[in-house]
Amino acid sequence: MTAVSADKEKQAEAIVREAIASVPLLRKEWYERAVQRLNSLTKPLGSLGRLEEVAAKVVAIREELRPDCSSKVIFTMAADHGVTDEGVSAYPKDVTRQMVLNFLSGGAAINVLCRHLGIDVTVVDIGVAGDTSELSRLVKKKVAHGTRNMARGPAMSAAEMCRALEVGIELANDSADSGRTLIGTGEMGIGNTTAASAITAVLTGLPVAQVTGPGAGLDDAGVRHKVEVIERAIAVNHPDTSNPLHVLQTVGGLEIAGLAGLVLGGAAKRIPIVVDGFISTAAAAIACALQPRVRDFLFAAHRSSEPGHEALLTFIGQAPLLDLRMRLGEGTGAALCMSLIESSTKLLNEMATFSSAGVSEASA
Amino acid sequence: MTAVSADKEKQAEAIVREAIASVPLLRKEWYERAVQRLNSLTKPLGSLGRLEEVAAKVVAIREELRPDCSSKVIFTMAADHGVTDEGVSAYPKDVTRQMVLNFLSGGAAINVLCRHLGIDVTVVDIGVAGDTSELSRLVKKKVAHGTRNMARGPAMSAAEMCRALEVGIELANDSADSGRTLIGTGEMGIGNTTAASAITAVLTGLPVAQVTGPGAGLDDAGVRHKVEVIERAIAVNHPDTSNPLHVLQTVGGLEIAGLAGLVLGGAAKRIPIVVDGFISTAAAAIACALQPRVRDFLFAAHRSSEPGHEALLTFIGQAPLLDLRMRLGEGTGAALCMSLIESSTKLLNEMATFSSAGVSEASA
Repeated sequence: MTAVSADKEKQAEAIVREAIASVPLLRKEWYERAVQRLNSLTKPLGSLGRLEEVAAKVVAIREELRPDCSSKVIFTMAADHGVTDEGVSAYPKDVTRQMVLNFLSGGAAINVLCRHLGIDVTVVDIGVAGDTSELSRLVKKKVAHGTRNMARGPAMSAAEMCRALEVGIELANDSADSGRTLIGTGEMGIGNTTAASAITAVLTGLPVAQVTGPGAGLDDAGVRHKVEVIERAIAVNHPDTSNPLHVLQTVGGLEIAGLAGLVLGGAAKRIPIVVDGFISTAAAAIACALQPRVRDFLFAAHRSSEPGHEALLTFIGQAPLLDLRMRLGEGTGAALCMSLIESSTKLLNEMATFSSAGVSEASA
Repeated sequence: MTAVSADKEKQAEAIVREAIASVPLLRKEWYERAVQRLNSLTKPLGSLGRLEEVAAKVVAIREELRPDCSSKVIFTMAADHGVTDEGVSAYPKDVTRQMVLNFLSGGAAINVLCRHLGIDVTVVDIGVAGDTSELSRLVKKKVAHGTRNMARGPAMSAAEMCRALEVGIELANDSADSGRTLIGTGEMGIGNTTAASAITAVLTGLPVAQVTGPGAGLDDAGVRHKVEVIERAIAVNHPDTSNPLHVLQTVGGLEIAGLAGLVLGGAAKRIPIVVDGFISTAAAAIACALQPRVRDFLFAAHRSSEPGHEALLTFIGQAPLLDLRMRLGEGTGAALCMSLIESSTKLLNEMATFSSAGVSEASA
């Protein structure tokens, strides 16, 4: 590390500490005010089920009785993983960069869903191996050309991790400044289910084999090898379970750190965050471990078919809104869920009340 | 019955018989062609989970490799129920008509969701008690001023039932003529969970108490009374379990008959039908009992929190796409689900392939 980068590391650390401290405590009275309004609307009490809970939570996050969720953005953060050297993915590493090109030309699943649902996609290079300087419409925040191989040592330096967290916090701050009212997380990174499974095992204490799955398409032998690689990474790095940042640095990923920063920064700015699938939830889990108040700002989009996801959902204290056996990442589950959340707030904002519509109420 | 209405009854019967006979058999080859295309798209195999199944089913229904689901309509059919005389609902009967006014002025939950999701709502008076002739933008197909009290005799005459079925078939035919590509079901009728529970008990053979719930908001004593009323209706009418039309006539409702016709007619015209909640599924169950091939044209929108819904879902052979503890009706669950179905076909139609995007495929 040079003196300059040591300075930058300190600056990034300070920004992370500030974001952690800035996450507000949600006030119960806002939930109650939301429920009061929901109960005045022309529908049987509670009949919109979880949509009512969602709307009330958005009210409490925003501290607005008629919150708007129409300015929606998904940050799809891309990074490479040195651990792919161990043969933990069904796809070659090059696919990370190829998929970034696919995102930028609008042909990936996340693009299709976001066009359909009125969501902007921001593609962020936070750690893609290789040069991306020629690419337009890419947000260039490369911290490194991928992580190092966690099976042989820490995935990142502390400085790299802090910078990646800072990138996420900056994007959340920019989102707040530009009036974003709903943020979704997304990612692309060949090898990143390996990192997410490692984080899950360390944070939850569950056996690696129980929280490790096929990712993008390993067979049974591939999954067994992946488990062995993750066990080796944990044995080599001794991630400190009482220190979420040490876990992130040793067995995480640059996009996971970036998303953890985005989650922290979004919560600090009172923006509801929609957490996509397994990898995004690993990032959210790091953020929750750093600051438990973050949980109140999160919506879990969907239940991924990756086996480690359930334990992470419990860790972040969220029940997912969708269960469609998806396991694609990119932010695809978040996109679908963001439309549900927008539905819930539109119902709150636009429905007639019993008195305004002249509809009789239920007998007591 | 006059001679004219006997003629009309015969005509309606013929139309119902024709719709039943016209429901095509889905051809497996179209599923296979859809899966082949899905597997060429830039995503891990099968990683879009149930969205891939949905897209393949739409392909098979439409017999088009790139089906369009953008022309979406929900028919919200409203009717009254004579059984409300027995005190089976938490809301006064007038609320059916009041809610029709609310639908027409755009203040109900279904209006808000459909505006958000780009779905047209067609409100149909198929049996609302009282005069609605002055109301504009209402589709006036009133068969009767509500059903008669099923606890004392058949809810409808055979002629009324046939006419209500015919109304639904006509609306499906009109939808096909005007290029609709996705139809959702919806309903409003104080007392209609009583009819739906009665149908469920008769079709599934389950005890009435097991398939009867609070509807719009009964307390425990109210539910016990509702069970007793339904048991009395079944004892009085002896609905013939081997004859779905007799079940519909004796313990059904006019909106339920209309929706059963809509489902039959939609399937006959190869339009995917999104079945909303408990009452809509009771209507779909009647249609499936009349013609088992109908099942292949249905999507169950969501799992209602009404206790009888699960058994009906099994009866129509569908796993719901959403589970949000909703129990509002109107078509609200269908609306949310229709957006998911449109998402699935847009993914199929708009995603890049591995070869078009230059993305490497997984190793074998």
